Amino acid sequence: MNALLTDLYELTMAAGYFEAGKAGEKGTFELFIRRLPANRNFVVAAGLAQAVDYLRNLRFTEGEIAYLRGLPQFARVSPPFFDALRNLRFTGDVFAMPEGTVAFAGEPLLTVRAPLMEAQIAETYLLATITFQTMIATKAARVAEAAAGRAVIEFGTRRAHSPEAGVLAARAAYIGGCAGTSNTLAGHRYGIPVYGTAAHSWVQAFESETEAFRRLQQVLGPATVHLVDTYDTLEGARQAAALGGPLWGVRLDSGNLFELAPAVRRILDEAGLPEARIMASGELNEYKILELVAAGVPIDAFGVGTELATSADAPNLGAVYKLVELDADGRKRFPAKFSEEKQTLPGSKQVFRFADRDMVGCSWECPSCAPGAAMAEALLRPVMIRGELAEPLPDVEAARARARASLARLPEALHHLAAADPPYPVRYSAELLALQEETRRQLQGASV
Amino acid sequence: MNALLTDLYELTMAAGYFEAGKAGEKGTFELFIRRLPANRNFVVAAGLAQAVDYLRNLRFTEGEIAYLRGLPQFARVSPPFFDALRNLRFTGDVFAMPEGTVAFAGEPLLTVRAPLMEAQIAETYLLATITFQTMIATKAARVAEAAAGRAVIEFGTRRAHSPEAGVLAARAAYIGGCAGTSNTLAGHRYGIPVYGTAAHSWVQAFESETEAFRRLQQVLGPATVHLVDTYDTLEGARQAAALGGPLWGVRLDSGNLFELAPAVRRILDEAGLPEARIMASGELNEYKILELVAAGVPIDAFGVGTELATSADAPNLGAVYKLVELDADGRKRFPAKFSEEKQTLPGSKQVFRFADRDMVGCSWECPSCAPGAAMAEALLRPVMIRGELAEPLPDVEAARARARASLARLPEALHHLAAADPPYPVRYSAELLALQEETRRQLQGASV
Repeated sequence: MNALLTDLYELTMAAGYFEAGKAGEKGTFELFIRRLPANRNFVVAAGLAQAVDYLRNLRFTEGEIAYLRGLPQFARVSPPFFDALRNLRFTGDVFAMPEGTVAFAGEPLLTVRAPLMEAQIAETYLLATITFQTMIATKAARVAEAAAGRAVIEFGTRRAHSPEAGVLAARAAYIGGCAGTSNTLAGHRYGIPVYGTAAHSWVQAFESETEAFRRLQQVLGPATVHLVDTYDTLEGARQAAALGGPLWGVRLDSGNLFELAPAVRRILDEAGLPEARIMASGELNEYKILELVAAGVPIDAFGVGTELATSADAPNLGAVYKLVELDADGRKRFPAKFSEEKQTLPGSKQVFRFADRDMVGCSWECPSCAPGAAMAEALLRPVMIRGELAEPLPDVEAARARARASLARLPEALHHLAAADPPYPVRYSAELLALQEETRRQLQGASV
Repeated sequence: MNALLTDLYELTMAAGYFEAGKAGEKGTFELFIRRLPANRNFVVAAGLAQAVDYLRNLRFTEGEIAYLRGLPQFARVSPPFFDALRNLRFTGDVFAMPEGTVAFAGEPLLTVRAPLMEAQIAETYLLATITFQTMIATKAARVAEAAAGRAVIEFGTRRAHSPEAGVLAARAAYIGGCAGTSNTLAGHRYGIPVYGTAAHSWVQAFESETEAFRRLQQVLGPATVHLVDTYDTLEGARQAAALGGPLWGVRLDSGNLFELAPAVRRILDEAGLPEARIMASGELNEYKILELVAAGVPIDAFGVGTELATSADAPNLGAVYKLVELDADGRKRFPAKFSEEKQTLPGSKQVFRFADRDMVGCSWECPSCAPGAAMAEALLRPVMIRGELAEPLPDVEAARARARASLARLPEALHHLAAADPPYPVRYSAELLALQEETRRQLQGASV
């Protein structure tokens, strides 16, 4: 399957843990985003379903093991390690925020507690899966909020970072708030609504624009969207309008939308087609959409491609997967890093969501348990227990609904496209800070 | 296979061409980059092998066809179209620049000449495949050139746009000039050299740093690279040095490399380890590497992740796939677009590379044929003929060698990281410009 889809050092470390007798020692790793990009006030968690698929199917084929044995890095590794790889299955526990949960920097999106060898090998795939979809769902939420109720269709597969990234971007964009996608496989695989009618090549393939429009209407009926900007947008709109219904409407893919959309609207209205809608596309993003909406430009739906499928203004999230707890036969240790640049807080954590703030605490805390304490939702939920799915995962519709509800709870300032100041309040619990201090003392003691 | 991995409008257009009796009409589509990003002087073509794999395996399963039949967009489409989908194979011709070829804006990287239905369906996948790998190979070439002979290892799978994007990024980065990758599957699948030793979690999993280093050395021997910055970089380097050989060297993943690398170098030298090397990683890119190299900082190899696998400063290339020629039973037509923003030149083209300039001409031209004419290489070569591979494709080693040779021919100014002014000279042939003018006149005549 995808067992080799990992950084080689995960596998050399796995061999090293095995040779050092530590392969079965349990490690807890947390996946979190260190710092949000400058223009993000939150992220929308996504990608968990693919992460779980990976863990459930993690196994090495004979061919993959033979490949590893032939690498110089494994020349000194003893045969029992390769037997262990042959038998490797993911047997650990996974806790995660359900897809669609709004999250912030420093909050674990996913926690893996598993034998060191298993948890280490999974690092690369889990990071790539969760981070990418989270990034796209987040971008989609921004774009959808800017569109203020108008439908946004994800159009970006051709510009995505590989075709498969396009499929996953469509999935994540739907979770984040898009109404659908142009990616047909995403529709088939995940049940996402799919949209699409015709490109400029369609218009060009016929002797005249009118002929192209007429033919499209014969095939698509009420789903027809005439792309009117191949030659001259207003002339194209007039030709589309002259044909009348049935049609959904027209699409503008270039030009000054502030001028063209009202002019096209008038053409449609004057032709007795007030129901015909206008879709706009062409290098759109949340900022341009916000301007168009603010100006009251008569656009009914947006198609967003490149910017959405690549999160072009923030094309990566600095997500990491850090070892925070070790358990060797019940003896616990708490690793941590204290360099100025890259601190890691020790211990397995939980994220508690109060009405107006989040608190990151130790996983065993219960801040709502004291009499009179405020209610908090524990965001990290059991997903896999001893390698088995704890319960069926929510589907994309449920994830999308969760994102909508989760976003609706955010204060007004967080919905703006610019950075909120102050950012959403995320605090560490007193118990977690005490554990950090104790760990620091112990590590300093050990290093003296 | 991947037949549904396309935008829905490709499939509705396919249905429309079929219903209009045009499915068998031959279309020629060209894939090219409209404009290079601001900080790119060239691109390095890559991704052709995956594009060809896709075309050779393009077919619809019964389940996929059933899915399409159930969509509202196909409610009016007649059954013979679905039979045509069932029997669809790619039967067209493909011309392309070999992977590793340096190219410029406006130059077709790939040309598809096929029945309209086939060529149209393939658009989305071809764009996503070629554009992504071309973008990464280009970024890798910049990074590798900045490293001026020092090895650059691609480390970015965890930040790539999905795990599979990481595998393809590793492939493209190798073609562009990286010495290898951390992505193990890329090593297995494409024969790319793989590198990797240990992460911070390795050091943290042991009671002490020395113990972690000692254990790593037992497993990796001469491939050992001690990651020395988990706690205190210089102290880590001293502990690594105290253990002596065998080892490749040490890795610095944080901190001020201008100060730390020379200090670590001294520690290694004073311990009698002048052969031990220093690798640097941690949010590097071509600009930081250029500075480090210019300052003579003693770093022997670079690991580059996020910036490389996402082409972070230019995370998409505006590539398009445009219909330039139609052939209905020998009757040719030349579509084109003349809007100010998005011009398309009509007719099937060839790119002629002269010693000091490129010329984009009509595919039937032969600028070197006249007596005394300068020699030019025709960059677009036959790849598939009537759906069959014309000859085996070059492997990644050959592509990498072609990139190196292709880059070496560029003038000095093109190798700088900033935009060259003027850019590399790419001209259109007189014949192509005449065809454009003629097409413009005809289209204007038709629209009057």
